[in-house]
Amino acid sequence: FWQVRIFSVIQHLVPSPRRWQSSPQTLNTTPSLQEVMLTSERYGVQRLPFSHVSNRDLAFFECLMPGRVITDPDELKLFNVDWLQSVRGWCLTGHLVRCLHFGPCLGKRGGTGILICQAGCILENLSQYLESMDFTMPLDLGAKGSCHIGGNVATNAGGLRVLRYGSLRGTVLGLEVVLADGSILNCLASLQKDNTGYDLKQLFIGSEGTLGVITTVSILCPQKPKAVNLAFLGCPGFSQVLETFTTCRGMLGEILSAYEFMDDKSMKLVESHLKLSNPVTGSPFYVLIETSGSNSAHDEEKLNHFLEQAMTSGLVMDGTVVTEDKRIKALWALRERITEALTHDGYVYKYDISLPVKRLYDLVTDTRERLGRSAKNVVGYGHLGDGNLHLNITAESYSHSLLEAIEPFVYEWTAQYQVSISAEHGLGFKKKHYIHYSKPREAVHLMQKFKAMLDPKGILNPYKTLPASSL
Amino acid sequence: FWQVRIFSVIQHLVPSPRRWQSSPQTLNTTPSLQEVMLTSERYGVQRLPFSHVSNRDLAFFECLMPGRVITDPDELKLFNVDWLQSVRGWCLTGHLVRCLHFGPCLGKRGGTGILICQAGCILENLSQYLESMDFTMPLDLGAKGSCHIGGNVATNAGGLRVLRYGSLRGTVLGLEVVLADGSILNCLASLQKDNTGYDLKQLFIGSEGTLGVITTVSILCPQKPKAVNLAFLGCPGFSQVLETFTTCRGMLGEILSAYEFMDDKSMKLVESHLKLSNPVTGSPFYVLIETSGSNSAHDEEKLNHFLEQAMTSGLVMDGTVVTEDKRIKALWALRERITEALTHDGYVYKYDISLPVKRLYDLVTDTRERLGRSAKNVVGYGHLGDGNLHLNITAESYSHSLLEAIEPFVYEWTAQYQVSISAEHGLGFKKKHYIHYSKPREAVHLMQKFKAMLDPKGILNPYKTLPASSL
Repeated sequence: FWQVRIFSVIQHLVPSPRRWQSSPQTLNTTPSLQEVMLTSERYGVQRLPFSHVSNRDLAFFECLMPGRVITDPDELKLFNVDWLQSVRGWCLTGHLVRCLHFGPCLGKRGGTGILICQAGCILENLSQYLESMDFTMPLDLGAKGSCHIGGNVATNAGGLRVLRYGSLRGTVLGLEVVLADGSILNCLASLQKDNTGYDLKQLFIGSEGTLGVITTVSILCPQKPKAVNLAFLGCPGFSQVLETFTTCRGMLGEILSAYEFMDDKSMKLVESHLKLSNPVTGSPFYVLIETSGSNSAHDEEKLNHFLEQAMTSGLVMDGTVVTEDKRIKALWALRERITEALTHDGYVYKYDISLPVKRLYDLVTDTRERLGRSAKNVVGYGHLGDGNLHLNITAESYSHSLLEAIEPFVYEWTAQYQVSISAEHGLGFKKKHYIHYSKPREAVHLMQKFKAMLDPKGILNPYKTLPASSL
Repeated sequence: FWQVRIFSVIQHLVPSPRRWQSSPQTLNTTPSLQEVMLTSERYGVQRLPFSHVSNRDLAFFECLMPGRVITDPDELKLFNVDWLQSVRGWCLTGHLVRCLHFGPCLGKRGGTGILICQAGCILENLSQYLESMDFTMPLDLGAKGSCHIGGNVATNAGGLRVLRYGSLRGTVLGLEVVLADGSILNCLASLQKDNTGYDLKQLFIGSEGTLGVITTVSILCPQKPKAVNLAFLGCPGFSQVLETFTTCRGMLGEILSAYEFMDDKSMKLVESHLKLSNPVTGSPFYVLIETSGSNSAHDEEKLNHFLEQAMTSGLVMDGTVVTEDKRIKALWALRERITEALTHDGYVYKYDISLPVKRLYDLVTDTRERLGRSAKNVVGYGHLGDGNLHLNITAESYSHSLLEAIEPFVYEWTAQYQVSISAEHGLGFKKKHYIHYSKPREAVHLMQKFKAMLDPKGILNPYKTLPASSL
């Protein structure tokens, strides 16, 4: 149940110019051989001169973890192709470690929950475990059913609760990390405050596995709210989406726990591809407002006052409020499953931008206009409360010319503001060459020095996050 | 008004075996020459072979910043002796930069405040500036009237609002830092989310100026709460202090913004040395509970329910609640001015420990018992909500034998638990040799590698934070 899956660091997911063997059955679109090669060349990725796994290595791993070495090509495919099928690796073998012996453990200190668990725990399982003990994860996101907490921390995942509980950086108390030389760095404190020396763990949070492999994490967990309300509202325009946010921020104050927005096109995709029904139709924009508090009567009163104000002032056209757990989940699905709906729509070009909220949606309309009929759908949704837009573009299949129409256009457009070209998803290798749109050269240079110091052979998640160093 | 004071990094505060020239007039106790030498030897500090400031250097600085170079020995004394008079430096000259042109600036993004200011801004001034615009600093501490925000960030200062707004690490959005080679590292984002590359600024937060000089900061500031209540309560014992915390955490939930505790001896010192009056006397322990919320009626109702429960169940013996700003400030002074009262009591040995709340006060009673009559007062107070104890020991004057009775006893005592020997104050050079009580050797070694990489000549705040490297 509580599994740690540490995939071999010897070989990595990397676009490869070799033949595309076969495609998984679950997705609609598979890039052709040529497209994969183009992608690979575009990002300038050439296999680095790592050694190949030998039979002797296999025997060694088999001896270390009997029965856990995978060599079946079909099983390996799951690890070689990313969920969006945009890149593929060329692992011929791998090993999978299942550690069953160290489940999560919750310490309580005067009403404060401190969770310690191995990196392979699945986020949703941790959430359920905590809720059974009247605590809650400070982190929630659409992929919770499959994502691992180690990956969440390694990518400093954002998600739906940043507005209330802040970023993972603030709630992660400690980490255990395996370094490139095989040594174990124990920064696994479970203290809320510790100012002894430099906070090393911060360097690994958000480094996408390029500086070390996170194996155990400790996280500060808030108490489970006694009352949760979810409002799903339709707004007549994006300026009303913004004004509704300012209004509810003031009127709901400390109980506001999420403010998400979706455009009409996102909702249409969820309805058509996933057959989910939208209870509030006919608006160009929708918002999800969640409150979490300790007193249901107080929270309801605050929410009602806000809704009254929002309706009478014309900020909101129509809406629904739910308090039942099951109905809350159903409403959240409309927002959380947009990513899934997009994959059913075709090949997806994904962007994850932090920018001033006032201009947030202009990027979507300008992109839509620029691409015209060469794109199937251009949609925008995201964490408005954090100033974080998810811009997604779909097409029937991967097209290099479409990619060239999008990039660097999107980055150039945002360059007029102080933005992050990756608010919460990380750079991976698709965006590493665009890091300069968000970080000055000296900062990138310093990052490369850290990488060279901690991973001199470049074996940790190679090809990712940083452009090749010119050190 | 908004001043940046960048003291010369050429010469630093360091215990010096030279003659103690004269003592400032404001404090009671001054270590004798011999005592200073012992302190210096104890911490193994020898002046490193830095060059001395020449007349040519002075002329250069004068040219750079006309009228701002200090050479007057009396004025320099302020910078050479720390507030507690426990160490002194030997600066013969210094320069002081007053930058008046770049005050704080508040950006609002959909009801979210983002403050950008220079490092020399005084915390209390920033607070007032923000409050005039209906926002609040996520940070508050007793020294707010004199401490600079740059120093707060460099030491990752904790204080009174960590319980509600989390650590500075989570709220600092960006930094501008001058590196040891004189180059400027611009990490001055004002975005709530940014996952592009490694989060370099984190390394400078809490590094006590040993990796770079912070010159500008950007901080996420919450909205000013519409209603604030402060309860000052007396508890019959420490176990009731703990149970009161658990109870109010549950009943006050999201509006709880501070939970501080003070023992009777701390309060007695504040009363006798500062002539402040304690409205609730006769209890062995006192707690300060602050609520901050968006609806005064709701908050009052929550607080009243909690107080009823706490009184009827015998957790609280007596108490008072205030809502008026002036009276809130007066009550807070009882807690905030303990440090000041202690300095009037004699020479102070200060400890700042994170440990499991259940054992928090045992350290105070065990230390008191151990030291017996060789200490004047042994008091305990602190941020109970964060598991953070301030243990303070006073004596008529500095005594080496008393120091040896305290250290390493305090660290050995806490070593049985997973603790931080410096929860929020940093290690400085008095505690740098004790870092191993909180951090494993590999972690310290890695910190030394970062120091060597970023400051190869060791010119940034030398003698501090880390033990000498054996690299």
